[in-house]
Amino acid sequence: MRRSQSGPVGRESSGPLRQLRETHEERVLSALRTRGPLTRAQLAEQTNLSRATLSSIVQTLLSKQALTERRGEDPAHAGLRGRGRPVSVLTLNPAGGLALGIDLGQRRIQVTISNVAHEFVAAGAVACAERTSWARRVQLALDLVDDLTTSHGISLTALAGVGVGIVGPVATDARSERAELVRETVSARFGVPVQVDNNTRLAALAEAVWGAAAGVGSALYLRLSYGVGGGLVLGGRLFAGAGGAAGELGHITVDRDGPSCPCGGRGCLERYVSLTTLQAQCNDILEARDQKARDLLTDAGRRVGEVLAAACNTVNPEVVVIGGELTETGDHLFKPLQAALRRHTHTQVHRTVRVTRAALGPDAAARGGIALVLTTALDQEASRL
Amino acid sequence: MRRSQSGPVGRESSGPLRQLRETHEERVLSALRTRGPLTRAQLAEQTNLSRATLSSIVQTLLSKQALTERRGEDPAHAGLRGRGRPVSVLTLNPAGGLALGIDLGQRRIQVTISNVAHEFVAAGAVACAERTSWARRVQLALDLVDDLTTSHGISLTALAGVGVGIVGPVATDARSERAELVRETVSARFGVPVQVDNNTRLAALAEAVWGAAAGVGSALYLRLSYGVGGGLVLGGRLFAGAGGAAGELGHITVDRDGPSCPCGGRGCLERYVSLTTLQAQCNDILEARDQKARDLLTDAGRRVGEVLAAACNTVNPEVVVIGGELTETGDHLFKPLQAALRRHTHTQVHRTVRVTRAALGPDAAARGGIALVLTTALDQEASRL
Repeated sequence: MRRSQSGPVGRESSGPLRQLRETHEERVLSALRTRGPLTRAQLAEQTNLSRATLSSIVQTLLSKQALTERRGEDPAHAGLRGRGRPVSVLTLNPAGGLALGIDLGQRRIQVTISNVAHEFVAAGAVACAERTSWARRVQLALDLVDDLTTSHGISLTALAGVGVGIVGPVATDARSERAELVRETVSARFGVPVQVDNNTRLAALAEAVWGAAAGVGSALYLRLSYGVGGGLVLGGRLFAGAGGAAGELGHITVDRDGPSCPCGGRGCLERYVSLTTLQAQCNDILEARDQKARDLLTDAGRRVGEVLAAACNTVNPEVVVIGGELTETGDHLFKPLQAALRRHTHTQVHRTVRVTRAALGPDAAARGGIALVLTTALDQEASRL
Repeated sequence: MRRSQSGPVGRESSGPLRQLRETHEERVLSALRTRGPLTRAQLAEQTNLSRATLSSIVQTLLSKQALTERRGEDPAHAGLRGRGRPVSVLTLNPAGGLALGIDLGQRRIQVTISNVAHEFVAAGAVACAERTSWARRVQLALDLVDDLTTSHGISLTALAGVGVGIVGPVATDARSERAELVRETVSARFGVPVQVDNNTRLAALAEAVWGAAAGVGSALYLRLSYGVGGGLVLGGRLFAGAGGAAGELGHITVDRDGPSCPCGGRGCLERYVSLTTLQAQCNDILEARDQKARDLLTDAGRRVGEVLAAACNTVNPEVVVIGGELTETGDHLFKPLQAALRRHTHTQVHRTVRVTRAALGPDAAARGGIALVLTTALDQEASRL
């Protein structure tokens, strides 16, 4: 592109012509990379190209084998009222590259491999002790990658990038030792770009790409597990904020005079509604059998709803996605949560927000690592426009 | 553009060539429209065009008289350590069009006129009674526009658009009678696009374009006046959220058992820290002379800081801008506010946020109306990319 820009544009035509075509092609490739399988109609909408230009571009990309076309279920109707009608669907050529997602969780290490056509080709997980060092966790993940590629006969020569989720905040303005260790070890192993982020934020991104908030403009994600974290996804991208801590809903204060928290705040939501705290008061709280468990869940639901109300009045998201083991308690948690959310939000905010349970399973964060790889390419492309 | 797209791109060259040049030119015009005067260096950074392409594009636009070049103060250094060194600055041709900003405030109607070069060419205001009908307020504003254009010899034939701020929420998903009345009356008068939004949100946008948050990526704005409102500005644009209520910080709950609020919530911040409430308890609170006034301000500052902490943990903004008459009390308000914000935010959030007083005066909302007009052109351009 530089070359064709560097000459006086008025003089030549092949440079600008090629540049324009490249821009159009990249726009098509980016849409498929970030959104997965799309019909031609969806692709036209996504790329904002005229049907004529689009069909010319698609024809070229098909002949280059950059794209593949197949009869499939209309992605627009998938999930809705059963199966969608069969239509012609375009995807990137599955052979075009692979993305690797790794989640180095507190108790569990997950590895998921996808191709650029959004097909998940292999996945596996191993348990690990909470005390496991981070160097050891990375090694366990790399061993798991070897097992998976061997058993599935996958070659990583076409690996496009790796996205890794870790526990704890990943600052954008300061060096995080943990993140650096992970990034360096993994990129040394594969020789491709490696991105590291908080695994709850990656789960939020995955829900916005494949899960409960797929395709929405703005989503708040809250994870209620042994820790309480969250993420904010705007326009299909993770919103980091100035310090990479946007969406830290677990550290919003619910009791101004509460105990101080390692995060630097005090009376943080996490302290009151984490599984660690709740199970200390009622061991089988997830079964919600007795009155004590239900009272604890009612109180937790109210507190979560109050925090979500403050967050919703701030960003007025389309969707609030709630994940983590605590959501297994269903209405015992969600009824008081919804009541508190309604009670403490601006009417305009409450009328427009949809609260829903997370749709993805324990591999959400690893999938989010893959989404990070697939959306970054678009980021780079967009920044050039 | 459609025409050149509608043919098979591979065949012709003038179409794509013209299209590419138009895209580059629009990119340059948009940057100057939204950011105001820029040096060539800043313009290259803003448009992400190579110096060679940029200078060719700028030359064309100068010869078309779409741009003007003048010796000016380097905008990058303006304000910082006194005056900036003189440099060559590019702006849109001031004759290229006008934008009109109107603020229909509770007690005051402001009209401000700017050209597309970000030069404010006329401004005026009139007081009005709180009970004044909205039809009457619009009429007062239109009369003021007539007075200003006559006395300054301004012709509105080149008017590009009007941005109007009104009191109260402006829903994006539902029809707001007040907004409709204003939009219809004003567009009938000028025959140009008219945009209506909440005037506090427009003040937030103005601070992000010309004020205390100029050029930052993310800013939360809070206005502490007879009402308490706010706005969220991301990437130089107002973030509306699903229902147009993003940034409604005045309606975040500070007392879960507090009184219900017309907004639909209860125990809302506005109820505790609005000037209406505070002056009812201490008439000369803005002078902060006696202990009673100071105690009230300490309490108000703490509550505002706690609400800002929740909002900052949610979006982790670069800057928090606080405006409104209550900020005239200075440290009496800001010291407890900052202490509460520090006490209740995640370290990563607190380390990266800067809290500052609003820089613009009572014409902020009217200026925001102008910013809405100038940034919308970019929105449309960006949506085409």
